[in-house]
Amino acid sequence: MQTKTWMKLGLAAALLAAPSLGMAQEAAAAAAEAEAETTPPMADIGYIFTTFMFLVTGFLVMFMAAGFSMLEAGLVRQKNVTMQLMKNVSLFAFAAVMYYLVGYNLMYPGDGWTMDGMLGAFSFASLEPVGLAETETDLTYASVGSDFFFQLMFCATTASIVSGTLAERIKLWPFLVFIIILTGFIYPIQASWKWGGGFLDQAGFLDFAGSTVVHSVGGWAALTGAIILGPRLGRYVDGRVVPFPGSNLTLATLGTFILWLGWFGFNGGSQLYMDTAGNVADISRIFANTNTAAAGGAIAALILTQILYKKPDLTMVLNGALAGLVSITAEPLTPGLGSATIIGAIGGILVVLAVPMLDKLKIDDVVGAIPVHLVCGIWGTIAVVFTNADASLGTQLYSIVVVGIFVVVVSAVVWFILKAIMGLRVSAEDEMTGLDMAELGMEAYPEFAKG
Amino acid sequence: MQTKTWMKLGLAAALLAAPSLGMAQEAAAAAAEAEAETTPPMADIGYIFTTFMFLVTGFLVMFMAAGFSMLEAGLVRQKNVTMQLMKNVSLFAFAAVMYYLVGYNLMYPGDGWTMDGMLGAFSFASLEPVGLAETETDLTYASVGSDFFFQLMFCATTASIVSGTLAERIKLWPFLVFIIILTGFIYPIQASWKWGGGFLDQAGFLDFAGSTVVHSVGGWAALTGAIILGPRLGRYVDGRVVPFPGSNLTLATLGTFILWLGWFGFNGGSQLYMDTAGNVADISRIFANTNTAAAGGAIAALILTQILYKKPDLTMVLNGALAGLVSITAEPLTPGLGSATIIGAIGGILVVLAVPMLDKLKIDDVVGAIPVHLVCGIWGTIAVVFTNADASLGTQLYSIVVVGIFVVVVSAVVWFILKAIMGLRVSAEDEMTGLDMAELGMEAYPEFAKG
Amino acid sequence: MQTKTWMKLGLAAALLAAPSLGMAQEAAAAAAEAEAETTPPMADIGYIFTTFMFLVTGFLVMFMAAGFSMLEAGLVRQKNVTMQLMKNVSLFAFAAVMYYLVGYNLMYPGDGWTMDGMLGAFSFASLEPVGLAETETDLTYASVGSDFFFQLMFCATTASIVSGTLAERIKLWPFLVFIIILTGFIYPIQASWKWGGGFLDQAGFLDFAGSTVVHSVGGWAALTGAIILGPRLGRYVDGRVVPFPGSNLTLATLGTFILWLGWFGFNGGSQLYMDTAGNVADISRIFANTNTAAAGGAIAALILTQILYKKPDLTMVLNGALAGLVSITAEPLTPGLGSATIIGAIGGILVVLAVPMLDKLKIDDVVGAIPVHLVCGIWGTIAVVFTNADASLGTQLYSIVVVGIFVVVVSAVVWFILKAIMGLRVSAEDEMTGLDMAELGMEAYPEFAKG
Repeated sequence: MQTKTWMKLGLAAALLAAPSLGMAQEAAAAAAEAEAETTPPMADIGYIFTTFMFLVTGFLVMFMAAGFSMLEAGLVRQKNVTMQLMKNVSLFAFAAVMYYLVGYNLMYPGDGWTMDGMLGAFSFASLEPVGLAETETDLTYASVGSDFFFQLMFCATTASIVSGTLAERIKLWPFLVFIIILTGFIYPIQASWKWGGGFLDQAGFLDFAGSTVVHSVGGWAALTGAIILGPRLGRYVDGRVVPFPGSNLTLATLGTFILWLGWFGFNGGSQLYMDTAGNVADISRIFANTNTAAAGGAIAALILTQILYKKPDLTMVLNGALAGLVSITAEPLTPGLGSATIIGAIGGILVVLAVPMLDKLKIDDVVGAIPVHLVCGIWGTIAVVFTNADASLGTQLYSIVVVGIFVVVVSAVVWFILKAIMGLRVSAEDEMTGLDMAELGMEAYPEFAKG
Repeated sequence: MQTKTWMKLGLAAALLAAPSLGMAQEAAAAAAEAEAETTPPMADIGYIFTTFMFLVTGFLVMFMAAGFSMLEAGLVRQKNVTMQLMKNVSLFAFAAVMYYLVGYNLMYPGDGWTMDGMLGAFSFASLEPVGLAETETDLTYASVGSDFFFQLMFCATTASIVSGTLAERIKLWPFLVFIIILTGFIYPIQASWKWGGGFLDQAGFLDFAGSTVVHSVGGWAALTGAIILGPRLGRYVDGRVVPFPGSNLTLATLGTFILWLGWFGFNGGSQLYMDTAGNVADISRIFANTNTAAAGGAIAALILTQILYKKPDLTMVLNGALAGLVSITAEPLTPGLGSATIIGAIGGILVVLAVPMLDKLKIDDVVGAIPVHLVCGIWGTIAVVFTNADASLGTQLYSIVVVGIFVVVVSAVVWFILKAIMGLRVSAEDEMTGLDMAELGMEAYPEFAKG
Repeated sequence: MQTKTWMKLGLAAALLAAPSLGMAQEAAAAAAEAEAETTPPMADIGYIFTTFMFLVTGFLVMFMAAGFSMLEAGLVRQKNVTMQLMKNVSLFAFAAVMYYLVGYNLMYPGDGWTMDGMLGAFSFASLEPVGLAETETDLTYASVGSDFFFQLMFCATTASIVSGTLAERIKLWPFLVFIIILTGFIYPIQASWKWGGGFLDQAGFLDFAGSTVVHSVGGWAALTGAIILGPRLGRYVDGRVVPFPGSNLTLATLGTFILWLGWFGFNGGSQLYMDTAGNVADISRIFANTNTAAAGGAIAALILTQILYKKPDLTMVLNGALAGLVSITAEPLTPGLGSATIIGAIGGILVVLAVPMLDKLKIDDVVGAIPVHLVCGIWGTIAVVFTNADASLGTQLYSIVVVGIFVVVVSAVVWFILKAIMGLRVSAEDEMTGLDMAELGMEAYPEFAKG
């Protein structure tokens, strides 16, 4: 730990003054006493604030894994619920391990993109020693452990986005292998371009909390998978979309509220510092803007579905709230409350319009993750130019495209390899039976009679 | 930001001393170095603590929206679950926008109730600039963003209380219009009387976290609506109460636990400061008292239903816990743990007694929100006099009555206008079918066969 | 509150220096101004950090009560869900009151195990006065209220562990009486041996957050109860285990995620201090290790059930995650991320192996709490020796055995007394009917047809 400089200063002043009066000893004793009682050392305070902030916002983002699980389990049909839960728990566990083994250091290559840096990037994450013993810790940021914990949750979120789109037809293990590659390599590599100080960052790309880096990446991977996998059996018949209503809207609503809650951590923690009044006030702005954007998205979807379909659609309202959240994620700091509400509301409108459009293209997205995370991820990234004077529309679009091409190409290659080796899709018979009984032999609600 | 005064003092001392020894430069350099390393400035620390406290307690209160949703969705019948979810998500979204557009500034009229203040009250909420740039921020409290975020959640809670009572029969849109008026006007106006420094505050009214300001207000609005709306069809037949059991007690229990969790934020954050040891110790007292009051309420309801009905009643135990929470909300700080437990237990008893009383009056409250939030809101407000020497029973009663009359009268006017213009209640046929299929065309559990 | 010593020092320096230059008054004025603006006093800062940390980690652990409720309600059969919810809400309420009335002071006997200390141990918990008024508070730790709040949640967790094992056959009231004794006496007495500075602590026993003190204690009490109570009717027929699948795996999954979330508070808060950079960095290590241990446990269970049964088993994956969490609880600080993952993974393997072993012994554990909390509690306590140089295998084993014998003997005595006085088990007829209708007259899902 750094020496307590201000205390040294006090001592210096006292010692300077003392000889002229012969009271050096008392002053020194008072200084020593002060040092003993002063907890923590001044230099630690900012570090404690920021580190604790990462832990709190990190656990909020962690809880989003539960949110995605509930949302997706609520929106799939009853016969696929256990499998959807299995995928969500497993993907979170694999994300945690892969991000430790590869992702974290790949995302922050440290030595400025030199050959050494690139090699160092392929190493396990490691934390500071216990009690920061025998280290010269830089106390101007936060602990490595808290940063790792927080960043890991973003990586896991990206993976959670994919599982919903591909539900009800993809096999468990090829899905999990894709998740391993996504969380260990695809996510961290592209994230390093922005958040690791890479070329998109240097080009001036702005993406505060990841409308592109997290949400569109999950969305692109999901879109690629959905196209390669094809729609669920019986979904598109004679040019008509057969509705497959979600089995449990209460849990879908709970999942949405949990995601809404978690997003305060997602966007708020992305301020990265809470060591000054300015930083904590900024985090407050972000909390308030994040909330109002979600509200705007929900209200827009509510009103628009009322107008379009004469009946408001709960699943659209839920996705509208999530759309608002994704839309504000690229820049939750600079907008005022009014702009944030409007940015969110436009997100909500985009979702209501994009869902039927995807269906027209026969791209079958079980939970609406592509409209929410990809479409609104792009919208949010573009919207930065309206509220942040430093943003360039060209750079934002360029970055969206670069990330999109990278994720689509690599994902497609991985999906095709997995298809060739393991097969991606369950048999038609298993799909009709439901993945729960066919692949897992376990129903989520075994005692409820089927309606 | 304010200049770092203590640092200036150190410098002053050093400079004073220096001439006599000719070491001014070293001392000044040390001071500059200290300033650079010292993060955050001393004057920021209290501000960071309090602001972050509001963000944490604020997200806990925000999550209460999920708690109310689960509680209410679990206590309505299966055919009305989707609608109940729709109302809860939508009311939270509208509360967020209305409190921004009108409520926040209406609640804190600032310029001391002058004409200017009243006019200024009708303005949008606006946050501090990014990074507190170019402002002379008062660092003795918390950021506007965090205060807005925290206070907004109280407004939304008030709205959540109403939705449960009126479930299963009120139309979506008139309900939402009422919520808009409640959150934009009714709640903030009466809240300003106490928390905006208005006449009830000046009269010495004590309501720490809102037994009256939040809970009884929601309760009065719900009661007025329930009377005007009338009971559900088939609820009271031949002087007998027909039980309409809740469709999902697991989710009702989850909702109760979420509310219990959120209440730590609700009561704890109402301390409003976490910038000294005394304040954080007080917040701890509040957490401990809030928890034990809930426990007292649950145990009282458990034992009383065992005695009265020979079988303990889970929904009463859940409402008993909530009753304990509402009861301690007017004064969660001054009681000891024993008093807090007793205050909560009396709340639990009141709920068990009030539920059948309401039924005798044929006031149909689907989830028991009136016993919990109105009856115990009043009880909690009165109970302040037992544990707080500054409280006057007369003032507490006066304030309960004033707020009650205001909310009942304004709510009644609004409900009657909505009834005349839009109609409040779905048709008898739709009510029998259930609001989900009739108004939304979407079931919450479409695949579960009806029992 | 303590006087601001550093400020006195500054004043001292200024006053020392001043006479030589005749500027004493200005310096004194500057000092006074600095003191006024300086919020909080330096001596308060560490206290605020640690206290707030306890409140945040405490509410996370509190939420574990919801996690256990959902896990257990999801894993019992439909006919026993309401009862399982009733038990979980009630046990949390009783734990809160008993820990206040007896447990807290029994666990921290204060006066070093003298006769006075032992007598003082039988007293109610009491908090500091409001605003720390007129006290000489020790500001080097945290507020009593926050410590009480945090420690209470550990006591309640111990109780939650028992309810799952004994589900579907134990009567409500004898169960609750056992909980009263467990939370008021059994838990606090043995916890005092380690965390109250008792003989196990003095012997060098290491149990950071309670693999033994909390989890194995709950596990031993559950095991004793399960043996005395006997298996559910129809569970073991002709040497065969009849599967009784859980009624709602979505809620079981939600419960697991909530427990996973809560465990950050459980282990993180057990650092007990957040007043220096070293302490907050340690809490970060703990968060990261806790998360990766859960991931390791889930992955191990996933892979092992795939290998053993050809189909991965969701309930095993959930219990695997919990097993990882319990396993890392005895020492979440010293391991690196790799070791933590492996410790968790071994926990996951142990659970998959222990579940059928218990069934072979006809010990019927409805939710798998004994494998998770007892087996992995022991494993975690032993694993300390691999990552902590201060640990002695002998002392760890000795402590496991001492605690185990104490809890088993006292629990058995209590269970037998309750059996003699009240009877422990519902009638065979009631068990077949289900406890919900038989004991409570209320179904959790009354409208869903039975499959």
